[in-house]
This record gives sequence, C-alpha cells and structure tokens, in this order.
Amino acid sequence: MTDFTATRAMFTLPEGVIYLDGNSLGPLPRAVPARVEQTIRAEWGEMLITGWNKAGWMDLPARVGDRVGRLIGAAPGTVVMGDTLSIKVYQALASALELRPDRRVILSDTGNFPSDLYMADGLCRTLGPDYQLRTVAPEAVEDAIDDSVAVLMITEVDYRTGRKHDMARLIARAHEAGALVVWDLAHSAGAIPVDVSGADTDFAVGCSYKYLNSGPGGPAFIYVAPRLADTVRPALSGWLGHEAPFAFDLDYRPGAGIDRMRVGTPSILQLAALDAALDVWDEVDMGDLRARSLELQDSFIAHVEAGCPELALASPREGAQRGSQVSFRHEHGYAIIQALIADGVIGDFRAPDILRFGFTPLYLSQEDVALAAEKLCAIMAEKRWDRAGFHHRAKVT
Amino acid sequence: MTDFTATRAMFTLPEGVIYLDGNSLGPLPRAVPARVEQTIRAEWGEMLITGWNKAGWMDLPARVGDRVGRLIGAAPGTVVMGDTLSIKVYQALASALELRPDRRVILSDTGNFPSDLYMADGLCRTLGPDYQLRTVAPEAVEDAIDDSVAVLMITEVDYRTGRKHDMARLIARAHEAGALVVWDLAHSAGAIPVDVSGADTDFAVGCSYKYLNSGPGGPAFIYVAPRLADTVRPALSGWLGHEAPFAFDLDYRPGAGIDRMRVGTPSILQLAALDAALDVWDEVDMGDLRARSLELQDSFIAHVEAGCPELALASPREGAQRGSQVSFRHEHGYAIIQALIADGVIGDFRAPDILRFGFTPLYLSQEDVALAAEKLCAIMAEKRWDRAGFHHRAKVT
Repeated sequence: MTDFTATRAMFTLPEGVIYLDGNSLGPLPRAVPARVEQTIRAEWGEMLITGWNKAGWMDLPARVGDRVGRLIGAAPGTVVMGDTLSIKVYQALASALELRPDRRVILSDTGNFPSDLYMADGLCRTLGPDYQLRTVAPEAVEDAIDDSVAVLMITEVDYRTGRKHDMARLIARAHEAGALVVWDLAHSAGAIPVDVSGADTDFAVGCSYKYLNSGPGGPAFIYVAPRLADTVRPALSGWLGHEAPFAFDLDYRPGAGIDRMRVGTPSILQLAALDAALDVWDEVDMGDLRARSLELQDSFIAHVEAGCPELALASPREGAQRGSQVSFRHEHGYAIIQALIADGVIGDFRAPDILRFGFTPLYLSQEDVALAAEKLCAIMAEKRWDRAGFHHRAKVT
Repeated sequence: MTDFTATRAMFTLPEGVIYLDGNSLGPLPRAVPARVEQTIRAEWGEMLITGWNKAGWMDLPARVGDRVGRLIGAAPGTVVMGDTLSIKVYQALASALELRPDRRVILSDTGNFPSDLYMADGLCRTLGPDYQLRTVAPEAVEDAIDDSVAVLMITEVDYRTGRKHDMARLIARAHEAGALVVWDLAHSAGAIPVDVSGADTDFAVGCSYKYLNSGPGGPAFIYVAPRLADTVRPALSGWLGHEAPFAFDLDYRPGAGIDRMRVGTPSILQLAALDAALDVWDEVDMGDLRARSLELQDSFIAHVEAGCPELALASPREGAQRGSQVSFRHEHGYAIIQALIADGVIGDFRAPDILRFGFTPLYLSQEDVALAAEKLCAIMAEKRWDRAGFHHRAKVT
C-alpha cells in the first residue's frame, strides 16, 4: 500500500495553501533545489564542458525518459525527454503522416488542447493543401475514424472537463481502420495508470510539469512503439538524433530507436529538476494512486454539490470517465477562482466559464479537500466574487 | 573602456583551470546559482502556478530576448528566446521558404554546423521532392547565390576553424538575387560585434550556452526583421505564439510580431540562469571585447607557432576573418586535447583532426593564454599524447 503521508513529506507547499492546481504546474519537490544547485555548482561550475560526459548530461534525456516510461507502461529505451510538448506533437505527427503516405487527414477532437490542434494545423499547411486537420466533438471521435484518416491525435484527458477517452478502444478502432495514433498524455502521466505498450499506441507524448512536478518549463517526453522506432523518419532531424552526432557528418543518418527523436541540446537544469522530482514516484503504486485520487475527487464533488449547488459539475460524474481533475461551471468562474486563491485555495479558470481543480494524493488529503470545498462554498454563499479586483481578465490562470 | 578585471570577477572558474572552451559551453557566472535558487524556492515553491504572472515568467522569453538583442544589434521587441537552436533554424527556414513560394532551394555551405544542415534537409523532405538543400564550399557561397535560391542559410563563424563569413556582403548579394537569409549566430552572439539590423538580415538564430554563458541546454533565440515579423507564418504554431493563448480558441491566429515565434511553454529555470548570466554584459562594449579577443587570439597563435610549429593553423591568419576562436590541426588532435585537459587547459576536439580553442576577454587574460600555449607546446615536445588512456574516441568533446 503506497504511503501517501511519506509522499506528502517530499513536497514543499506554502503554509496555509491548499494546492488544487498541480494539473497546471506541480508543486516543488523537496529534493529539487539541492539537485539543481549540484548540477549548477558541482557539474557546470566545476566540470564545465566535460560535464556532458562526466556528469552524464548526454544520457540524461534517455535515463529520465526511462523513469517516466515506467509510469506510462513503456519499456526501457522507448521514451526520451526533450523540447516542449508542442514540438513533440509536431514531431510525432510528421513522423506518423509519412508512414501513411496515401492518406491526408489528421483526426482530432474539439476537446483537445488547442496547442495540439495549432501544431497539427501548422504541419498540414506546411505539407500542402491536400492535408487536413479534421476535428469532431469528443464523443464523435470513434465514429469519425474511417479509412481517410492517416493519424488519430487524441489527448486522453480533457484539460477543461477532465473527461477521459477510452484509450485502448480508440487505438484498436484506429488500427482497424489503418490509421496511426498519437496519444497526448499531458493530463495522464502521473495522474492515472497508463499502459502505452498494452494499449499498443504508435506514438505518445506528454509534459512533465503537471503531475510529474518538474517545474515551470520542464521538458516533454515522446514514446515511439518499438515496432516503429527504427523505421520512422524524424522530421525534426537535429544533431542529437543523429547516429553519430560527434562525427559531424554532413548527412543525417537517424540514430537507433527512440534516440532519433532527440533534436537539439537538452535543457540540463530542467532535466535535473525532473530527475529529482521523479524520486517521489519510487514507492508509488499507480493503482493506489488512482483509487485515492478518485476518493478525493468524489469527496470534493459531494462537498461542493451539497454546499453550493449553484456550481454545475462540468466533469463526468462517473469516476472511471474522469482523469484526475474535477471542473464546475459558473458564469462568474474567473472571479470566483480569484476570490478562492485570495483565500488560500489555488485552483484555476479556463475560458469561458470553467473552474478547474486538480487532485493528487501525492500531497493532498481528505482534510484539504473538505476545507477547499468549504471555502469555495463560503465564497459562493457570500457572493464574495462580486468584489472589485476580481473581475479583470486573467493573462494566465 | 570595458573593465575586463571586473567581468572576470563575475565568473567562477575551477582553481588552476584555464578555460578555452567557452565556445562550446560558457563557464558559470557567479550570479546564476542564487538566481536559479530564487526562481525555484521563492517563485515556483511559493507562488506555484501564479508565478507565470507574479514572477513574470510569461514575459521572460521576450525580456531576455531584448537583452540578447542588444548584443546583436536587434531593436527591442524583435528577438524572443525559446526551444533549441535546431528548432529555431527549422522555424526560420520554414517561414522563409513560404515567403518565396516560387523557389525551392535552401543554399548553405559545408562549413555550417551539421545540425543546421540536418534540420534543413529534414524540412525539405517534409515539403516534398521539389525542395532541395544545396551545399557548397564556404568560399563558393557568394557565387552560388542565384535566382533559384529561396533561402541562404549561413552560420557566420565556422565551428571548426573560426572562419568568419562577411555577413553584410552575403546578405546584400542574397537580397539582390531575391533570396531571403537565415543567419546562425551560434558562434557570434557575445563573441564578436553583430548588427542584424544594419546588415538587414531577414532571420537570425543562435544559442545562449556558448559566449552568453547560460549553462548546459540554455534556450535559443530567434530574430525576425520587423519588416517581416507581422507577415511570416510560424510553421511551428504553438499556443504561446497565438494572439491570445489563454482564449484557448480552436483556430490559430498568430500573435503580433516576434511573439508568434514562441511555441510551447518556455524553460523558466534555464531562462532565469541566462537572465542572470547576461548581467555580465551590462558594462561591456562590444568593440572593446572584439579588440581584446583578437589580441588574445593573435598572442596564442604566436606562442603556439613559435613553441610547437608541428601544429598547423587551421584558422584564418588575419584576425578580421576569424570569429573568437583559434584552431590547429594535428593527426593526434584528440589525444593532444585529452592530455591538455589533464594538464588543466580545457580546449576541445572536432573530428577529424581539429584542436579548437575559444577566447573571450570576459574571463581570460594574456597570462592565461601564454600559459595555455606553454602547456600545449610542452605536451607536443614530450609527445605526451602518446600515452595509454588518451586514445579512445570521445563521445563528446
């Protein structure tokens, strides 16, 4: 049984704050500052350029990739870290499209994170007028998979509502239709059990700064199924994906397997932070995490619906259909979240009317959840959102 | 007159080490550790998600971009940080090619850094069989610019020999032929005076971990000429390049000017390190820096040629034709560099036979240079490279 008191002790959280926004940016794990300082002072400062070998920087994207891989059901050597999620989406899509040269459609849904859609659209425009990004409603995806679809691009958990797609089912359906699949795990990795290998996805991508707690701008990851990894052409063919980067050949020859998905020089400080952050997961069982996460979510829903029924549940009621977040709708959503933050509970807002709360048992208890719901309902009862200062638009929420 | 004793005091360097590899990875500026620690503990740790606004993370790529811009002759609001140099090369090339839809050729030279060539080649393959990367010898570039060329892609300073292209001349020639220019400043920014605006380049890109000392994996930069910035389509159309990222529209609308070249979530720890590292430049005059750099280089060449003439100068003899590095050739180059590192002088090796030494007056003195040359010549005199342990191939040098 996972000891969530022990994991909680591995995070620093500001005094008096209940943090329900780890689905946007995970909090600071205690091990991170010392590890980053070591990377800066003892490695960069003392080893200088030799740190690439002596401190193991060159292998860090693969070593950390293996640690992330364990959390998403990927075998060692099939995940590598680097770049941002948007770049990894582009890379996976471009590689996938080339594997289906007779098809021209990327299929996605309107619940996908917009950046994924933007990157796909940008790639289609680069490829030419025949290529098309087709988006349908989330519930219409399965029926929209036909033999015109080259690639199905799906984010498993909806960033607004927490609605979770049935990964294995959609992948099986896509493969049946001869399409490939790019699966975005931004709100899945570290949030719910994932089995990229068992579900037989072709590509998976995700970020590390949400449930994996790597800090602002932490690197993304990419998984390529081993059956494809040695045949895909990496459209973003950077030197560190070359078979022999330090031969400095004029011609590109892709490296073996997942190595070819590396592009440029990796961000070592961010990777060091992530590596330290991943220590939290060493003793965590994903089944325990999922069960506890659903208890926290269900409890929050029950408290809020009992205490402030004017907030309408925007997430699926059934836990199995949610990721690790719960959302409500209210026309004053933005101002309510501001009032809540002022009262020590950090959640966030997504346009036009979504109040969004992320849950993880790594550092949240039932007491936190009950207190957060109580504070939220007090704001609603007192209409406290209706105050000066809470109504200007957020630049970032 | 720039005070280079003052700048030297702004770096930490290991006791007894003479560092001639700042053209690979700049050393640690003293201000960096505290700044990164503040970003981690006081910003990420305490502000959590609100750091994007409260700590100014969201604007950091633009604010730091302006500081880098000042060093390369770019006006405020024309440079933004992000991603890696390879990604920025791809982004600039893709944007440039679209501005010349009737042309199909990217022209570059065999002295370019291979990753630039790989990225260009990858883009051409994605665009289709009509597109072509054409590479000629560095000295043949000017004559190879004809009206088939859509984009001229040049790295100003050769990473192996330090040979410097005549930027203004090549740009003028390219424009005359109706081509656009993507200029790679990896070995220029912080190394030599650059005037992207005066030279009228269309795009410029570069990295920050060499002469700008941002640390391993620090972010890249991209400049787009203001006359183009509002019309280019960013092929890598990520959400932070959107006109209104937090509206979460399903359709991409590029942001104003250079903002549209942002892609995904920026690496805040690396940007904080860079921002602190840039303090070094506040009192530096680039003309002073260039003059002193050439003195150091010329002195190194004179010492080495006097003391160990068996090393053949691989760099142009005339300072005006070099960047801020000096290279020699020797068949045992790799082993010589290993012996030199063992003796406290860090330079590096580039296949097949280049010994490469970077110079910057920011932290190097004439005494350092004389001592480094003396140690190098002692190794040559004693044939000290010819020892066990120095002959295995470098993974990274």
